[in-house]
Amino acid sequence: MRTHYCGQVTAADLDQTVTLCGWVLRRRDHGGVIFIDLRDREGLVQVVCDPDRPEMFATAESIRNEFVLQITGKVRRRPAGTENANLVSGEIEVLCHEIEVLNASVTPPFQIDDDNLSETVRLTHRVLDLRRPQMQKNLMLRYKVAMAFRRFLDTNGFIDVETPMLTKSTPEGARDYLVPSRVHPGQFFALPQSPQLFKQLLMVAGYDRYYQITKCFRDEDLRADRQPEFTQIDLETSFMNEIEITGLVEEMVRFVFKESLDVELPNPFPRMTYAEAMRRYGSDKPDLRVTLELTEVTDAVREVAFKVFSGPANSGGRVAAMRVPGGATLTRGEIDEYTRFVGIYGARGLAYIKVNDASQPNEQGLQSPIVKNLSEDALRAILERTGAQSGDLIFFGADKAKVVNDALGALRVKLGHEKGFVTGEAWTPVWVVDFPMFEYDEEDKRWTACHHPFTSPKDEHLDLLESDPGACLAKAYDLALNGWEIGGGSVRIHRADIQSKVFRALNIDEEEARIKFGFLLDALKYGAPPHGGLAFGLDRIVTLMTGAESIRDVIAFPKTQRAQCLLTDAPGDVDERQLRELHIRLRQKVETQVEIAKN
Amino acid sequence: MRTHYCGQVTAADLDQTVTLCGWVLRRRDHGGVIFIDLRDREGLVQVVCDPDRPEMFATAESIRNEFVLQITGKVRRRPAGTENANLVSGEIEVLCHEIEVLNASVTPPFQIDDDNLSETVRLTHRVLDLRRPQMQKNLMLRYKVAMAFRRFLDTNGFIDVETPMLTKSTPEGARDYLVPSRVHPGQFFALPQSPQLFKQLLMVAGYDRYYQITKCFRDEDLRADRQPEFTQIDLETSFMNEIEITGLVEEMVRFVFKESLDVELPNPFPRMTYAEAMRRYGSDKPDLRVTLELTEVTDAVREVAFKVFSGPANSGGRVAAMRVPGGATLTRGEIDEYTRFVGIYGARGLAYIKVNDASQPNEQGLQSPIVKNLSEDALRAILERTGAQSGDLIFFGADKAKVVNDALGALRVKLGHEKGFVTGEAWTPVWVVDFPMFEYDEEDKRWTACHHPFTSPKDEHLDLLESDPGACLAKAYDLALNGWEIGGGSVRIHRADIQSKVFRALNIDEEEARIKFGFLLDALKYGAPPHGGLAFGLDRIVTLMTGAESIRDVIAFPKTQRAQCLLTDAPGDVDERQLRELHIRLRQKVETQVEIAKN
Repeated sequence: MRTHYCGQVTAADLDQTVTLCGWVLRRRDHGGVIFIDLRDREGLVQVVCDPDRPEMFATAESIRNEFVLQITGKVRRRPAGTENANLVSGEIEVLCHEIEVLNASVTPPFQIDDDNLSETVRLTHRVLDLRRPQMQKNLMLRYKVAMAFRRFLDTNGFIDVETPMLTKSTPEGARDYLVPSRVHPGQFFALPQSPQLFKQLLMVAGYDRYYQITKCFRDEDLRADRQPEFTQIDLETSFMNEIEITGLVEEMVRFVFKESLDVELPNPFPRMTYAEAMRRYGSDKPDLRVTLELTEVTDAVREVAFKVFSGPANSGGRVAAMRVPGGATLTRGEIDEYTRFVGIYGARGLAYIKVNDASQPNEQGLQSPIVKNLSEDALRAILERTGAQSGDLIFFGADKAKVVNDALGALRVKLGHEKGFVTGEAWTPVWVVDFPMFEYDEEDKRWTACHHPFTSPKDEHLDLLESDPGACLAKAYDLALNGWEIGGGSVRIHRADIQSKVFRALNIDEEEARIKFGFLLDALKYGAPPHGGLAFGLDRIVTLMTGAESIRDVIAFPKTQRAQCLLTDAPGDVDERQLRELHIRLRQKVETQVEIAKN
Repeated sequence: MRTHYCGQVTAADLDQTVTLCGWVLRRRDHGGVIFIDLRDREGLVQVVCDPDRPEMFATAESIRNEFVLQITGKVRRRPAGTENANLVSGEIEVLCHEIEVLNASVTPPFQIDDDNLSETVRLTHRVLDLRRPQMQKNLMLRYKVAMAFRRFLDTNGFIDVETPMLTKSTPEGARDYLVPSRVHPGQFFALPQSPQLFKQLLMVAGYDRYYQITKCFRDEDLRADRQPEFTQIDLETSFMNEIEITGLVEEMVRFVFKESLDVELPNPFPRMTYAEAMRRYGSDKPDLRVTLELTEVTDAVREVAFKVFSGPANSGGRVAAMRVPGGATLTRGEIDEYTRFVGIYGARGLAYIKVNDASQPNEQGLQSPIVKNLSEDALRAILERTGAQSGDLIFFGADKAKVVNDALGALRVKLGHEKGFVTGEAWTPVWVVDFPMFEYDEEDKRWTACHHPFTSPKDEHLDLLESDPGACLAKAYDLALNGWEIGGGSVRIHRADIQSKVFRALNIDEEEARIKFGFLLDALKYGAPPHGGLAFGLDRIVTLMTGAESIRDVIAFPKTQRAQCLLTDAPGDVDERQLRELHIRLRQKVETQVEIAKN
């Protein structure tokens, strides 16, 4: 039906007769001539309709925006001065000989190149929204990225093995989506939160190198960067250690960035322990584009009169400082705004010191309501450790370590980007390694797995599993990019005895372990090889690459934050007959209807 | 951890020191020396442990089947006469210097190279079953096939766009798997039976060429070649007609067979109308390896006394003959067996005539209980049309057309393969085209869509939509291979007015259409391009390619025919708390438990 894509006709085709198919982006009547911007996946081309072909011209007069046309015409150079350098086809235009209207269109609710649409409008009219060039670019890039991953993995001996969607709940900690079974009354499948256990089983089964680009599901309350279903690039390999796995993976990430964005990422990626990342950046996914750093001052403020500092310092909390070079010029209003900002992360305030004279660690040199309650020793330590200079400002966080890290970590990124404390690098990948095996759940009073319960402890920390779980580090690694965690993984436990010890540390007794992961424990008994792997969040990587505001802009048919599809109106009601076949009924129908009405 | 895969060490590595990782398939002690067959994904290698390295030898003595080893040793030529031509590594062996036991194994429930295991044992111990070389070959081939499809589609400008798994029920006719919504009480997502509507929306959105290799779901009673979740290679293109689409697709199939099996399929594939396929083969997926054919004799037997023939012939049924060359030698026992066989397909008997003398269309030349009730004219017509020769046998089917086609179609394939009526070709693809738009549902007394309600009627049949729906043919095409339907598709309706007409023919009123497919109807209004596509069943294609007995042999973690995963024991029970969160409860708990006990 066509000889070229609209967006790919160039001066190389001059004087050729071409046939094009596409959508009318815009029709302009100018000096008795009709100009049509014809659009397809590859871009725009200008079509010129002269009145000297009356039949064709009459058709041209009838067309409206978003009509689907097939046109045949001759490629000619645009008149001098009317070229459009923004278009691949910008030097030429097509003098139309024939038009066929392949389909008409009613007037769309918005103009396709309108960039100021609400998300609700966009998601409701998603089909038209998907015609926007930015969305087409995003989804094409997404494909390019996925294919680059596949090509690298294929070349490196990984094979794609599909794992089940209808499966058993896996212990990822989030809420499962459940699927009632018709054949087995009262029983349910779960949609996978990840293929974790299956990929480990494939290693035990000797498949050696596995990958999959697959949908995973979590029924969680949604945040800006979450969707009920998301896409994971999941891989696992046998007979490789932590260093080899992360080495291969970063080679892959470099390949993907080079192939899809023509960007050279550093070689090698910097590596940092979890402890260092938290200490210096308050985050296990530090944005290394930002130059600001946190400074530990907990030990220096234990004795001070200022209870806001000495309290947390003496009860296992953290007190950290963040020097802002030249920050003494920050206005009261700006500081108030930052104070509100850290409040989001649970900080009850944002103490600060303006450094007027760095040589005087006292009320003469420092300007702040808190200075008089801090000892000169403490102030000297703060100035020395932060390296503060006259004219700087120092922000403080003092609370439970988590609150301090979350609050100052976020402030660091916000302030860094707003005030230009950045390195200028576009892409700053970093491996964060040596994660703790466990974190203590204060509510449940027990240790939980930081990564998941199949993560291997470091060889030299095996004894700590019993004696000091909190100090036990894992062979786990995350890859952060520009402050986003884009991938994470670990070397897994391949020995049944160590897996049992980890379950004991997690207070999972044998019966529970057997019910939940019996098939994995069985598999470990039959010659499991050393293995490990990693999973990437494809949605996030592409969001970062496109600079999109939301992962919804890199997903063709996303759900809203209320887990709805505005296009198809899913979820929806179902027949009573269907529920009966599935052996379930709705709970409190009346209450339900009230709820629906409310929503 | 290794320098080579076990299965890839060859004479090219002679005198090299290699390090290998793998599983012990078998250990043999022979003349004071220990031989280990070490296995990995790529195959086997023979490792020889001499007692002159006592430490290594002691380890070798401790190992058992399925232990995971890392061994280092020197490649040497096997002694003359002990080579194994079946192995890539068959000319060499590795003289072991060091062994490390990476993991032990308890005694497996079966030997990995045992080919006589029940399916229940295999699925219960799937991890060990997946170690069997045949399963590894199957899954590797599956990957190779999927990648070949991707490569072809990528090269031809198709882009992979992911469509939702949590969606609204699509009208494929089968039962949906439902997923209760937590956020929207009383509402449900459906898992997709196919991405049909989404891929059409992507065409309307201008993505031009789409593909996806994706999971689809049908909650149906399972047959040998069905799974609750199956994998579809799904594609759609704009601005191409039926001939162009099938042309591109068969080029793809040739590419995939060449790449993954090194097989050359015919170019072009033969094409046949649905009507011809039913007439000659009684099937819309004819196995063209079989040379036997059906012959239409309905019109020739309308007047005969034999009611078994004249009844169906005069009431819209079909009477067909199938000539079996030389079939007069079939025994009474064989004919009885075939009679039982056609009974499976609803045939109430299997009439036949043995042709002793083809020149005498009467009781002298023909041997059969039915001959005396057939007129000489009828018998002459039968002999002429079938081309029967002396020594042949003719089988008959006489019933509703569906019963005759199913029964004789199946008999044709069975008898053809059993008795060698085959062309000798290994692969016989064939396009079946010009499907009817509608078939009449006798139970519901209404027309239903043969393909799906978005299939375009042939341009010249638009008027038949109202006047004679049964005669209206569709732009639909199936690709059959060796008697299996491996793919099917159609050109879709891209005009809203024609879509409305088709809904009317299907007795779907406007309100129902709006509720079920409103978003598609909306999309058609905004400039839908001409488009069409096709979907392949990956599981089936790979099953055919491997010659596996069941699609379960080409799926890593399949469900049983009762839709259960014997490995993970899914589906399973869930907490009352989870049900409460999902606003559902189990129906009649007591009854449910009785049901479970029964199963």
